[in-house]
Amino acid sequence: MKKIGIVMGSKSDLPVVQKAIDVLKELEIPFEAHIYSAHRTPLEAADFARTARDRDFGAILAFAGMAAHLAGAMAANTTLPVIGVPCKGPVFDGMDALLATVQMPSGIPVATVAVNGGANAALLAAQILAVTDEGLARRLAEKRQTAAAAVLEQDAALQNEIMK
Amino acid sequence: MKKIGIVMGSKSDLPVVQKAIDVLKELEIPFEAHIYSAHRTPLEAADFARTARDRDFGAILAFAGMAAHLAGAMAANTTLPVIGVPCKGPVFDGMDALLATVQMPSGIPVATVAVNGGANAALLAAQILAVTDEGLARRLAEKRQTAAAAVLEQDAALQNEIMK
Amino acid sequence: MKKIGIVMGSKSDLPVVQKAIDVLKELEIPFEAHIYSAHRTPLEAADFARTARDRDFGAILAFAGMAAHLAGAMAANTTLPVIGVPCKGPVFDGMDALLATVQMPSGIPVATVAVNGGANAALLAAQILAVTDEGLARRLAEKRQTAAAAVLEQDAALQNEIMK
Amino acid sequence: MKKIGIVMGSKSDLPVVQKAIDVLKELEIPFEAHIYSAHRTPLEAADFARTARDRDFGAILAFAGMAAHLAGAMAANTTLPVIGVPCKGPVFDGMDALLATVQMPSGIPVATVAVNGGANAALLAAQILAVTDEGLARRLAEKRQTAAAAVLEQDAALQNEIMK
Amino acid sequence: MKKIGIVMGSKSDLPVVQKAIDVLKELEIPFEAHIYSAHRTPLEAADFARTARDRDFGAILAFAGMAAHLAGAMAANTTLPVIGVPCKGPVFDGMDALLATVQMPSGIPVATVAVNGGANAALLAAQILAVTDEGLARRLAEKRQTAAAAVLEQDAALQNEIMK
Amino acid sequence: MKKIGIVMGSKSDLPVVQKAIDVLKELEIPFEAHIYSAHRTPLEAADFARTARDRDFGAILAFAGMAAHLAGAMAANTTLPVIGVPCKGPVFDGMDALLATVQMPSGIPVATVAVNGGANAALLAAQILAVTDEGLARRLAEKRQTAAAAVLEQDAALQNEIMK
Amino acid sequence: MKKIGIVMGSKSDLPVVQKAIDVLKELEIPFEAHIYSAHRTPLEAADFARTARDRDFGAILAFAGMAAHLAGAMAANTTLPVIGVPCKGPVFDGMDALLATVQMPSGIPVATVAVNGGANAALLAAQILAVTDEGLARRLAEKRQTAAAAVLEQDAALQNEIMK
Amino acid sequence: MKKIGIVMGSKSDLPVVQKAIDVLKELEIPFEAHIYSAHRTPLEAADFARTARDRDFGAILAFAGMAAHLAGAMAANTTLPVIGVPCKGPVFDGMDALLATVQMPSGIPVATVAVNGGANAALLAAQILAVTDEGLARRLAEKRQTAAAAVLEQDAALQNEIMK
Repeated sequence: MKKIGIVMGSKSDLPVVQKAIDVLKELEIPFEAHIYSAHRTPLEAADFARTARDRDFGAILAFAGMAAHLAGAMAANTTLPVIGVPCKGPVFDGMDALLATVQMPSGIPVATVAVNGGANAALLAAQILAVTDEGLARRLAEKRQTAAAAVLEQDAALQNEIMK
Repeated sequence: MKKIGIVMGSKSDLPVVQKAIDVLKELEIPFEAHIYSAHRTPLEAADFARTARDRDFGAILAFAGMAAHLAGAMAANTTLPVIGVPCKGPVFDGMDALLATVQMPSGIPVATVAVNGGANAALLAAQILAVTDEGLARRLAEKRQTAAAAVLEQDAALQNEIMK
Repeated sequence: MKKIGIVMGSKSDLPVVQKAIDVLKELEIPFEAHIYSAHRTPLEAADFARTARDRDFGAILAFAGMAAHLAGAMAANTTLPVIGVPCKGPVFDGMDALLATVQMPSGIPVATVAVNGGANAALLAAQILAVTDEGLARRLAEKRQTAAAAVLEQDAALQNEIMK
Repeated sequence: MKKIGIVMGSKSDLPVVQKAIDVLKELEIPFEAHIYSAHRTPLEAADFARTARDRDFGAILAFAGMAAHLAGAMAANTTLPVIGVPCKGPVFDGMDALLATVQMPSGIPVATVAVNGGANAALLAAQILAVTDEGLARRLAEKRQTAAAAVLEQDAALQNEIMK
Repeated sequence: MKKIGIVMGSKSDLPVVQKAIDVLKELEIPFEAHIYSAHRTPLEAADFARTARDRDFGAILAFAGMAAHLAGAMAANTTLPVIGVPCKGPVFDGMDALLATVQMPSGIPVATVAVNGGANAALLAAQILAVTDEGLARRLAEKRQTAAAAVLEQDAALQNEIMK
Repeated sequence: MKKIGIVMGSKSDLPVVQKAIDVLKELEIPFEAHIYSAHRTPLEAADFARTARDRDFGAILAFAGMAAHLAGAMAANTTLPVIGVPCKGPVFDGMDALLATVQMPSGIPVATVAVNGGANAALLAAQILAVTDEGLARRLAEKRQTAAAAVLEQDAALQNEIMK
Repeated sequence: MKKIGIVMGSKSDLPVVQKAIDVLKELEIPFEAHIYSAHRTPLEAADFARTARDRDFGAILAFAGMAAHLAGAMAANTTLPVIGVPCKGPVFDGMDALLATVQMPSGIPVATVAVNGGANAALLAAQILAVTDEGLARRLAEKRQTAAAAVLEQDAALQNEIMK
Repeated sequence: MKKIGIVMGSKSDLPVVQKAIDVLKELEIPFEAHIYSAHRTPLEAADFARTARDRDFGAILAFAGMAAHLAGAMAANTTLPVIGVPCKGPVFDGMDALLATVQMPSGIPVATVAVNGGANAALLAAQILAVTDEGLARRLAEKRQTAAAAVLEQDAALQNEIMK
């Protein structure tokens, strides 16, 4: 199976990254995670992206806040799918990171998920690998069913609560 | 090769969709396009997503404006990668569609691109298929090089213009 | 009397839902509440809306946050009045949910109230039933008078406070 | 059948109002339309709302732009359902009108639809009357089916267009 | 001297109102404060404004949050200067109240100050009375000088702090 | 009667200023208008404000766009009421000018009106002078009645139009 | 004298760039302009910044729209002052570019000017060179005086116009 | 070496200013800091800017929140580079200060950094001085390398953490 590359612009993004790591571990998808800043370590960041396909990565998750350039810097240096996770910074509730991640110019797409959407980023990466991996597709389908069942269980429990 | 599914919520989204179709044709990726509204034809929309994997689709592009639910409605009914394209509507410059597309709850990701980003949606779909398709990966890499060369040509031409 | 249907996209919306339930109980309006996610349990959500009129519901309240599709998913599957309550999520103060709820395309209206406006959603539902229910109309008028009297009592109390 | 009251804050709102009138006429719902400004004719506006139930109105549509107080002024003076249509003004794309219409305080709901959503406002009013009017409910259901069929016809036509 | 009228839409606005009261007391300007809601007590609110000039008020301060109609409701019923104070509500940081207060249609102005700007609202009212009241103008000028001196004292103190 | 001072930051603001001038002329209020930029001619701008009270001005209207500092620069140099008119600039629909005008710090109020609200700025100035000028108060009341009558005439005309 | 480097992310930014070029020519400051995209030609963009100090540049102006990474990409690769000009793109009035340019993380500053602020970017660069260049400082001071005089001439002309 | 001037509009901005002071001290750049309000002490603020070049300042940092005019007031009175730091105020997360600082009219640039970006403001000032100061340029380059090394150390540490 291809590996998932994870890069975060700052160690402070780790709590959001952890949500992605938990999903990848649960789905038994191999990954590698790095702290590379598009601005403080631009060479390392670009190198990671440039060599990713040859090192058997299948997708890259990029986590960054504020003027979040990391996903774009990845996407500029690879044709692998790059998934951008805008992280909430000290102001603007992550709107700065969302716009800096999603509003990419024509030619260089970034697959953007919700602000702080670490879990969904990992799921999206899994869905990408599952296009040609039936086993993973099955695990994803089961995970969906489990989630649906959990909602319906909550609904059943609610009936008792409300009726009190 | 897997097909790309395209759904748009309204015929008025067609100019943005066309940019995606042009890219898919250029990259020789088969596709199928439909007008299905998450609100006016919810059954047909859900059916398309639910049966997409079995009908050999590899990813779904969903184009919608305003309270853009179409990408989410796709994603709720398949574990294929769903790429959402927020379309600019009559007000708010597409911010309503962007937030309605990207801010998906945990468990159901939508890969969101820029407002009206039809070309990038198709490129992202191509990048997803290219994870396991070396020929397509090569074509994508060449397309990148062509785009870079075009920028550098423009730069060369600029030197003459400015110096006038 | 017709029943009011309540659906919420996540159990975390319950505190806002509770404000609606309190109003419905106070006005002696029957209701049924469910946790159905537009994305995690799309079939159950659609079924609830599709069968609501036949099961003697008079209006549906839908509570959801982030890319809040639940009210739209209800409205797409019934011609009963659907009242959408955008719930404040982890970022953007509920602006994402507000736009995803109110900016519905032509043909499928959602009656949207304020962010976290659970009480008003229930009052609006009551006002809808009261169009043809004189007793309920009278109870609503009395509730208004009570609220007005409370404001004037606070005003009277204020005179003493300020004059201190 | 109950009548629908329509008030607009300014004659410049008439194009948006017209979309509501067209829907009401199509559905054979009686209505009465007035230009009453919450700020320039506050007495007439309040009187209209205060007497509306006794004059056999079933709902009020209020159209206003900028600091759109008209829907709130209606709602403050009646317990009939009030549907607010925020109209796009000279700046801010109607965001000022949207927030001034939807963010009503607890106790006085306004059922808000999309910016310039005249047609949906009328449909919502029809859906409210249809709660206890089976004939109207049937006409609304047929209108929905017609709209769905139109989407599917567009989809069929699209297949030919794209394949060219 | 003319009195200043103060109205607030809800008792929860009192902390912001208090800042205005403190300034009025310091400047020895008579005032009267009331809780009148544009939506819950529309008659009392309108009456206050309509009779204000005859009862010797010189300006009205209106404090309200969310879809803040109170200042507009005052302005619609008097030609006295009305000063609107948008109050921060549960979401949107008072942007809803700001737009609902400041974006008044032509013909009915509201003098809007900053979100939660209670002190400045009172100062503005004082400045209005001071146009024809030399004593008050002098007190305002002195208050300005005191404020300037306080800044310069802080600056002097800063020099020691920083040099440490 | 006191004069009204008008300052605009740029000649491009003149169309908005003209709306204020028209109102002042109609109400027979003397005025003086200047182009003084807070940034390009800071000394002249400050001098105008500093000497305004002694030169018998009763209020100052300040028109500016973008990072609109002009109203604040006026207010910093006088205790006369300063009315700020945020002007729509090349981007952001005047939101930059609105926030730069209304969000004044405690101690230095600016009475802010709607974006491009030239007419209301003049009316507000007139209302300020009318606090102690009964003749002007009467003219303002009459102008209000004329405006209300115009709305009601439009309403009467509408009845014929709609019924066609 | 040091040269000013100009980079733009797309040829479509040229009209905004031209405003900078005009100012630099007027002030007789040498410059070099290039089209280098942070995403389409990341290597050339980084190289330009990395070698800029050695090639005798004194500051870099970077023009880009949408998810505007170009200024940040420059700043990441040089310690020369980098001036970012957010360019208005197809949606959001340049707010995406503004946030993507100004919200840089600690350690890598970008000196951001107004959306489409090409002239000010060049002036800022000139002011930077003028810190140690008395001749240029004098030219800048004269340019300021000329601009101030132009405002005052417009003011004088206005007196005649208004008095007509 | 030239000095850096620091002005802040209010003592409450000191925590953000301190981040700038720490950087300047670390880089051994002389500075002078003052509390001068554009609105409460306009004369002192203008005087500081007007005399700054003659008193051997090389750049001015201006810190202010809300309707942040201080940077603009500096820039209006000097042709030295002025760096504006928008400070987060009680509402709007500093968006008001950002727009009031960055959206300067043509002719009077302010080099704006991120909201609360005190450290970057100081770094930018250092980069300006370093254009002609090789020693400082070297210290800045070293500081960059140290920061990059710190990121890579965090990355190395992360490998152990994640693998646990």
